[in-house]
Amino acid sequence: MPAVPPRSGEAIFASAERVNAELFTLTYGAIVRQLITDLEEVDEVNKQLDQMGYNIGVRLIDEFLAKSNVTRCVDFKETAEVIAKVGFKMFLGVSATVTNWDAEGTTCSFVLEDNPLVDFVELPDTCQGLHYCNVLNGVIRGALEMVSMKTEVTWIRDMLRGDDTYELQVKLLKQIPEEYPYKDDE
Amino acid sequence: MPAVPPRSGEAIFASAERVNAELFTLTYGAIVRQLITDLEEVDEVNKQLDQMGYNIGVRLIDEFLAKSNVTRCVDFKETAEVIAKVGFKMFLGVSATVTNWDAEGTTCSFVLEDNPLVDFVELPDTCQGLHYCNVLNGVIRGALEMVSMKTEVTWIRDMLRGDDTYELQVKLLKQIPEEYPYKDDE
Repeated sequence: MPAVPPRSGEAIFASAERVNAELFTLTYGAIVRQLITDLEEVDEVNKQLDQMGYNIGVRLIDEFLAKSNVTRCVDFKETAEVIAKVGFKMFLGVSATVTNWDAEGTTCSFVLEDNPLVDFVELPDTCQGLHYCNVLNGVIRGALEMVSMKTEVTWIRDMLRGDDTYELQVKLLKQIPEEYPYKDDE
Repeated sequence: MPAVPPRSGEAIFASAERVNAELFTLTYGAIVRQLITDLEEVDEVNKQLDQMGYNIGVRLIDEFLAKSNVTRCVDFKETAEVIAKVGFKMFLGVSATVTNWDAEGTTCSFVLEDNPLVDFVELPDTCQGLHYCNVLNGVIRGALEMVSMKTEVTWIRDMLRGDDTYELQVKLLKQIPEEYPYKDDE
């Protein structure tokens, strides 16, 4: 069977079912507000958003693999490019840029020019420690774990905290060797 | 200035910024799961989803009025048709049917054939009293309140509870006379 070429994030985004971005933004805002009310501590809210993202990521990876025709990436570098160009585009409708690689090729940053999660958002003074978009960390962490990469994801820059852009650092901690359910000779 | 004709829900949906429906569905699922964990009682979860929807609705109405060119509806009947054909389509990408009018023309139902909120959702036995899509009630209630209509919104049929479709009943309780900020002669 000939290999199917990977599809562009743009093409997948255009053909997939979608909902209005403002509805999504307001819905996400409602979650954050709810968590702030329930948990009170912003650190707890950050943790919970990350956990929610993780749960989303471990499921979204299936949709990603099914729709993108992306096959095994050769290394973390290729994986990062695919997330930035296909993953972000396919789900959020915006691309990210991969930058700030370390010498070992195990840490890089995603820079987001446009971020649909934060439209109309302003943080009150009481929420200064909040990582409003922390769900994204969790999504990336969860999705990568499903393809055997343990990562740590951290905000480096955040426009809601006065920075000039959104920069999310992803550090590869460990590549888990894949376990095959059956031996070859079975 | 000539009146601008109202735009179809389809046209607005196609031209608006959008995000992937699966991401939205999973994000909404994460909220519901979070609320179930935090609040434990399904009745409380239903209430909270409704309240979140209300907060979303009071903001979404602005986007709706700005993008749809819909002007004042003559009565509740026209309002209901506009919500079903333009509102649902514009935000969720699906239309609803308006049906089951009462004799007074103050109560009707929206029937949804397709409901992007519930993809991949199955309710465990412990959640049988849950109105999973209760956010929709709140959105409608909140949006209508902003155009001076007090309503009560109730689920009549729910596929997650074994019914054959989604039917949401909207009852007009009171039409609040609009108050103008200035008198005519000021």
